[in-house]
Amino acid sequence: MEIGVIGLGGMGGGIARHLLATGHVVRVYNRSPQAAEALVEAGAIRAATPAQAAPPGGIVITMVANDAALEQVTTGPEGFMPALGAGGVHLSMSTVSVALIAALARRHAESGSDLVSAPVFGRPDAAGSGRLWILHSGPAAAKTRVRPVLEALSQGVFDIGETPEAAAVGKIAGNFLIAAATEAMGEAFALLTKSGADARVFHEMMGKSIFACPIYQNYGRFILDEAFSPAGFKLSLGAKDVGLALEASAGAQVPMPFASVLRDRMLAALALGQGDLDWTSIALRAAADAGLGQTPR
Amino acid sequence: MEIGVIGLGGMGGGIARHLLATGHVVRVYNRSPQAAEALVEAGAIRAATPAQAAPPGGIVITMVANDAALEQVTTGPEGFMPALGAGGVHLSMSTVSVALIAALARRHAESGSDLVSAPVFGRPDAAGSGRLWILHSGPAAAKTRVRPVLEALSQGVFDIGETPEAAAVGKIAGNFLIAAATEAMGEAFALLTKSGADARVFHEMMGKSIFACPIYQNYGRFILDEAFSPAGFKLSLGAKDVGLALEASAGAQVPMPFASVLRDRMLAALALGQGDLDWTSIALRAAADAGLGQTPR
Amino acid sequence: MEIGVIGLGGMGGGIARHLLATGHVVRVYNRSPQAAEALVEAGAIRAATPAQAAPPGGIVITMVANDAALEQVTTGPEGFMPALGAGGVHLSMSTVSVALIAALARRHAESGSDLVSAPVFGRPDAAGSGRLWILHSGPAAAKTRVRPVLEALSQGVFDIGETPEAAAVGKIAGNFLIAAATEAMGEAFALLTKSGADARVFHEMMGKSIFACPIYQNYGRFILDEAFSPAGFKLSLGAKDVGLALEASAGAQVPMPFASVLRDRMLAALALGQGDLDWTSIALRAAADAGLGQTPR
Amino acid sequence: MEIGVIGLGGMGGGIARHLLATGHVVRVYNRSPQAAEALVEAGAIRAATPAQAAPPGGIVITMVANDAALEQVTTGPEGFMPALGAGGVHLSMSTVSVALIAALARRHAESGSDLVSAPVFGRPDAAGSGRLWILHSGPAAAKTRVRPVLEALSQGVFDIGETPEAAAVGKIAGNFLIAAATEAMGEAFALLTKSGADARVFHEMMGKSIFACPIYQNYGRFILDEAFSPAGFKLSLGAKDVGLALEASAGAQVPMPFASVLRDRMLAALALGQGDLDWTSIALRAAADAGLGQTPR
Repeated sequence: MEIGVIGLGGMGGGIARHLLATGHVVRVYNRSPQAAEALVEAGAIRAATPAQAAPPGGIVITMVANDAALEQVTTGPEGFMPALGAGGVHLSMSTVSVALIAALARRHAESGSDLVSAPVFGRPDAAGSGRLWILHSGPAAAKTRVRPVLEALSQGVFDIGETPEAAAVGKIAGNFLIAAATEAMGEAFALLTKSGADARVFHEMMGKSIFACPIYQNYGRFILDEAFSPAGFKLSLGAKDVGLALEASAGAQVPMPFASVLRDRMLAALALGQGDLDWTSIALRAAADAGLGQTPR
Repeated sequence: MEIGVIGLGGMGGGIARHLLATGHVVRVYNRSPQAAEALVEAGAIRAATPAQAAPPGGIVITMVANDAALEQVTTGPEGFMPALGAGGVHLSMSTVSVALIAALARRHAESGSDLVSAPVFGRPDAAGSGRLWILHSGPAAAKTRVRPVLEALSQGVFDIGETPEAAAVGKIAGNFLIAAATEAMGEAFALLTKSGADARVFHEMMGKSIFACPIYQNYGRFILDEAFSPAGFKLSLGAKDVGLALEASAGAQVPMPFASVLRDRMLAALALGQGDLDWTSIALRAAADAGLGQTPR
Repeated sequence: MEIGVIGLGGMGGGIARHLLATGHVVRVYNRSPQAAEALVEAGAIRAATPAQAAPPGGIVITMVANDAALEQVTTGPEGFMPALGAGGVHLSMSTVSVALIAALARRHAESGSDLVSAPVFGRPDAAGSGRLWILHSGPAAAKTRVRPVLEALSQGVFDIGETPEAAAVGKIAGNFLIAAATEAMGEAFALLTKSGADARVFHEMMGKSIFACPIYQNYGRFILDEAFSPAGFKLSLGAKDVGLALEASAGAQVPMPFASVLRDRMLAALALGQGDLDWTSIALRAAADAGLGQTPR
Repeated sequence: MEIGVIGLGGMGGGIARHLLATGHVVRVYNRSPQAAEALVEAGAIRAATPAQAAPPGGIVITMVANDAALEQVTTGPEGFMPALGAGGVHLSMSTVSVALIAALARRHAESGSDLVSAPVFGRPDAAGSGRLWILHSGPAAAKTRVRPVLEALSQGVFDIGETPEAAAVGKIAGNFLIAAATEAMGEAFALLTKSGADARVFHEMMGKSIFACPIYQNYGRFILDEAFSPAGFKLSLGAKDVGLALEASAGAQVPMPFASVLRDRMLAALALGQGDLDWTSIALRAAADAGLGQTPR
């Protein structure tokens, strides 16, 4: 199958590479063309514009940084939507706003193409080796059509609804759960440390028992080791994602007090210069408010 | 070894039963004596008062409902502290306040005995089969002495500090993490449901991937199934434990905004009559605030 | 002086009427023309478009509902910006986002005109009788030029900065203070009522002593009387203004935990159908969470 | 009339002085006797113990620092309750917990005396010149009896209920309103300052218009001037009062999210060493979280 991949950062590049490795014909586009070099050497077809990356009536994957970039590559002057044309499927894998997904779905419907939202959980190495976890949603026929692609990329594909917005919300909700777990650990560790208890022992036990899962095991360790740089996922991006959660919750009229606390934590961290640290560094705020360590970091 | 067990509810009863089954001599006391019947039939020695349950210079386990009960059985008119006497160890396994543990530690020191705080994570069936998870803290020699008992009862024993308070804070922090995870899921599920996404699919994926651990898997399912009655752990008790977290954090001067949100959720749930439901039912509050379902329950 | 007034709702209509009454030549425009009838009868010049309302090189006042309306009348197809032209001053009195004010300021600078932001505090009757309170900000010369107009309309004019954004933030911050005072009273009254104290007596004393000012006196009475309909200011508009505060605080990286609580209160009130009630009805949420009264309203 | 006054700090001393000046016979007691010197010189009768300060069957005013002190002087070894005896009235003017007032009311009932709770708003100079504001509650006959005393001390006396607890809650709710107004100003000023607006101008306008009342005028100025030392009311005492609000709200099952935010602010301020500053210095926390100024102070 011929597939376009637009956006070749860590995640998009890994996806393109894995599709190539599993026998697909892959057209690749990235705003700064250097990111395409290695993929072209490995057999990908270079597209000079987003439009050139779209196989007419085929499948285009987008994995870009934010709403503005997704809008640009899809419906901008060189956007792929006209080239994709009737019968095509846009497989949007970025973390973007629910409002944009809803707007693009309308545009695709007018253009005769379909939008399937399929955001992912996993790091770049998981993308490059087909071990992502993928939520997706959209029109039934389009979902059926992209399913083999999603299965090639993942260790689990989950159908979360009939509208493309559903999976967009799913991704936002997932990142919210991660941020909430991080803040909870930050508060708990501050309490333990200031009370003379060994937070590492606490973390070890929790990670072996009732919270024996990657987020608590790994993110808890990052916090305890203050392993915030280089960032696995920058706090500035985490702040953006919390912003998406608040925007989605405002749109749906769903109060989310934990998300509101996270908003204020993220803003404090940004104001104090932590934007380029890993997003688990929001735990520094709980510690600093308790008078632990030198603030700010 | 001869061991006293005071408090024979689900947890304490399971502990006494398992100690008997693993070859210990066990003295048992419970405020309402019926709870001791089956254990006495199985070979336990009935104590008519807390004091009678204490092997002089030996080990007494307490597993009671709250601060008042622990104070009563330890230093009340028929309390075991004098009987336990010099060289004895009080192994306190209840979830109680840091302030009470600190106060009892002082009293024990005056009495020549030691206090080891060893709160547990696990349900009654885990207590009855030696599969608890146990944090403990206290004076080094006393910890060494009770270690075989803790190992008999658990699948993991963790030493969290030199003061009995440390493990008390650890238990409180653990329950805080659980409550925070519950609230986070409640908010996420409300957002998903009101946005037209399938919260069950979201939960399934999270529980298989980045949150593949008991709390998210089981508590998430309770929320989605509204399986709040009969309660595994009553909301009124959960509210008490959030109160212990706030009390500990006030004492240690550690702001905990998530704990504060949980406080207000718990109070709303109590005010609306949910005290006897399972504590995962705080998720009903996030749903009701979003206009989902009939409020209040 | 000849002045254009665009937007003739309660506030804008009052402003136009008072300017007429104090001897100004006034051009008026409103999207639905009926709103201009009475003013035209009283001597105002009817403008068929926003552009026609702008005296070239003169002063145009805008008082419209939201960002979209302000953008439309200023830079839309029939917008007044070109007609106002070089040397003109746009006196923006609406409550709008800081981001829009910043964007319009740039457009005005390109067009040779100036933007003075001058949002107001006061109800329509205060607008119609020159008793508003007005913050304003912008380039010094432009502020000097509009000062007589602002003085005609107000009992107090305050210069809050050199950039038009400053006054926009001032208005947003003022409405935030009002909403915060309302929530605080709602919580206090719920506590008093449920504790068997007389909230009306409490309110009376506060309103005569340390909180002897209009917001506590009047808004407190609205809450106690449940005088929420007809709305003086709709909760849906209050929710919009809290949203503006959050947006401004995110842009400036200023955590505002009280604003976050207000956000969640407003969302709950909207979700439960209170959007058309007066915004003081957020106090119903504090009462309902305490189990007072039938929820939801 | 003969009146006992127990507790001769700034407030209690002012009350005793004013009662003397208005022709009452006053017995005075203070834990450290020096505080009584000037009053004795002015004609007061020195009491060596709390018990000696109580006119049998008469009126005793208590104005002490906290729950422990009130319990001590009332029912401690030298407490006045037995001496006050049948027909006496205890006029409790301190800010103390609802739970203690309830407990003392029961003890007084057993002793044949009555408890009227009558906490005050005002600074020491208002106490010394009869210009306090006073809430009071308790049994009707006892309220009638103490009314002339309360009127002598105040510019306004308000009857908030039939149980002594009612006025205790009223005082706690009043201090909560003050703390909430302070936090709201702190957040607003941080937003304004960081947005380039002049927070002083904003404060001036608000204090002349919709918030023209002492709390906003004076406390806002303290914040803007950073006039936190010497403290008018120490932050450590403000933290205690927020704690009383949380305790009362937990007891009454009333969620108070603003009080929860205040709790965490107060704890952060204490942890960062602000306990001896004026309680308006919680505004430093909002500023510091926004990256304004050097943190911590």
